[in-house]
Amino acid sequence: MAKIAVIVDQGFEDSELIKPLEAFANAGHQTVILGMKKGDTVKGKKEGTPITIEEEIQNANVHDFDALLIPGGHSPDRLRAHPQPVDFTREFIDSGKPVFSICHGPQLLITAKRLKGRTLTGYKSIIQDIKNAGATFVDQEVVVDDNLVTSRHPADLPAFCKACLERL
Amino acid sequence: MAKIAVIVDQGFEDSELIKPLEAFANAGHQTVILGMKKGDTVKGKKEGTPITIEEEIQNANVHDFDALLIPGGHSPDRLRAHPQPVDFTREFIDSGKPVFSICHGPQLLITAKRLKGRTLTGYKSIIQDIKNAGATFVDQEVVVDDNLVTSRHPADLPAFCKACLERL
Repeated sequence: MAKIAVIVDQGFEDSELIKPLEAFANAGHQTVILGMKKGDTVKGKKEGTPITIEEEIQNANVHDFDALLIPGGHSPDRLRAHPQPVDFTREFIDSGKPVFSICHGPQLLITAKRLKGRTLTGYKSIIQDIKNAGATFVDQEVVVDDNLVTSRHPADLPAFCKACLERL
Repeated sequence: MAKIAVIVDQGFEDSELIKPLEAFANAGHQTVILGMKKGDTVKGKKEGTPITIEEEIQNANVHDFDALLIPGGHSPDRLRAHPQPVDFTREFIDSGKPVFSICHGPQLLITAKRLKGRTLTGYKSIIQDIKNAGATFVDQEVVVDDNLVTSRHPADLPAFCKACLERL
């Protein structure tokens, strides 16, 4: 069974956190909610779903996890304003372990400078940012490029969760 | 006196809309609030400041305005998911008339593909996006590059408003 790091901050897209968590739990995998401050409660942007930060990103070690999930919403843009989430994301993608990113999730990978030459999808508003980062944007429900699994928006969640589970 | 287009959607940074509006009004300039749907009320992300859309972007004509203001917050990323605000922003920058952008405002200019070779500032989370768009990022309270006036965040508003007024 895998141990999955989930990196999150205020204003995450509710379903893009909750649905993968459910899918991972149903498959017997463990998840750890990482954020800027342990014990803080962060909330979803649409439904206000509360989630408690279990471990601080600056104290987390990539070696302790088998995969990384980056839910979308406003969360990735907030996280990339700090160096620790960016460094953690960069180390994760460089480790070769699976990175699951949906919606605005690629924003963290852009600031980590790890999209050059990759093929992925993401939310429509960030298409030009993805292309400018040197990546190829593909408009489909799920894109798997080596260790990077990406989707566009909540409607893609069934395909996204399936593809994530296949990589664990 | 100048007529200034203000392009805005849900989740704008309250002060980055309100303070420039006050500064423009105090100097005798006219502003028109442009958005996706006329009559809709959009709200600020921190204080929930309500503002009513006076004219739809798709019906607005660059020739009718002397300058464009792009407040930050979540508004620019929401707007750039639609073609009309992107086209309007591109036409405005190409017109040579002043474009005032603060915080996340450059996101619209990125999607409009009009930052290559420009020098500007913006919110810290989008620095890599600005650089990837072919622009030079400068970390200072206000940057004036030809018709483009930019600032980083609400603390820069006094310098931003002063620089905007000087361009009118």
